[in-house]
Order: sequence, then structure tokens, then C-alpha cells
Amino acid sequence: MATVKISIMLKPALLDAQGRVVQNALKSLGYEEIESVRVGKNIEIQVPDAANLDAQVKEMCGKLLANPVIEDYKYEIVSAESAK
Amino acid sequence: MATVKISIMLKPALLDAQGRVVQNALKSLGYEEIESVRVGKNIEIQVPDAANLDAQVKEMCGKLLANPVIEDYKYEIVSAESAK
Repeated sequence: MATVKISIMLKPALLDAQGRVVQNALKSLGYEEIESVRVGKNIEIQVPDAANLDAQVKEMCGKLLANPVIEDYKYEIVSAESAK
Repeated sequence: MATVKISIMLKPALLDAQGRVVQNALKSLGYEEIESVRVGKNIEIQVPDAANLDAQVKEMCGKLLANPVIEDYKYEIVSAESAK
């Protein structure tokens, strides 16, 4: 069994409206000096180990999880072989 | 300037409805063998370096960014002192 941790963020060139709202909310809590806030998604998937897991994860991200036009994704595969 | 990377996930005991929907969508793409999917938030904040940054981040998470009743958060502070 492997855990895949995928982090999806809007591309840096795009205005992150949700992040802007969070930044304003933090400002009203007294954190005036915050320069920027960006909000993204975090997806954790448990899958059986497979030789082509890397290619599979890329396909999942490209087809469903991320929108490659406006989002960048990073992923990390943590194999839990040793925990069996 | 420091970058704070905050990862917020629903507590493991709670049913993640959004994750379940993503899991079903992946299933219909042919990924039958996925065991679980959990979806969370990712927040990246740019703030000036401060001695009490750690305490500040904990306060932001507890008061605004995360709901400590149903969510767990992890954070990582990456100082960019060397980049100045």
C-alpha cells in the first residue's frame, strides 16, 4: 500500500481570489504585515503499490484532480511496504 | 521574508464526503483499486520574519484557517533569509 500526497496550487501568475479573502480576514485579526496568501488543495490517496504508480498519478492529476491550464501540481509517493 | 506552508485535513475519524466523490470519479476513470481519498486545504502565506512567527501561525490556524474541532493542521516555516 502506498500513500500519494498531491498538492495543487493555482499558477503563480493568476490572482488567487480565495487567498485574497483569507488575507483580508487575517488583516482584520491584526496580521497587517502579511504579504500574500495562496490557497490550494491537498489530496491524499491510498493505493496498492504498482510499478507504474508514478505514471498513474500523473494521469489522475492531468485528467481529473488538477486543471493543468490554471493549476500546478506536485506529488510525493510514500510507500508503506515496511509497515506491512 | 518567510513562507509558511500550512496543510489542513479533516480528522481521520470523520467521513470525507469530498474525498469520497473524488474516489468515485477516479473509479469511473478505471482506477478501481484506490482504497481511500482525502481532500484538504493547502495555504501558503508570505510574512516578514518575526521571532514569534511560530506562535503567530498557531494563532492564525486556531482562530481562522482551520476548524480545530474537525480538522488537523500541520505547518512548516521556510525562512528565505538567504535569498535576500
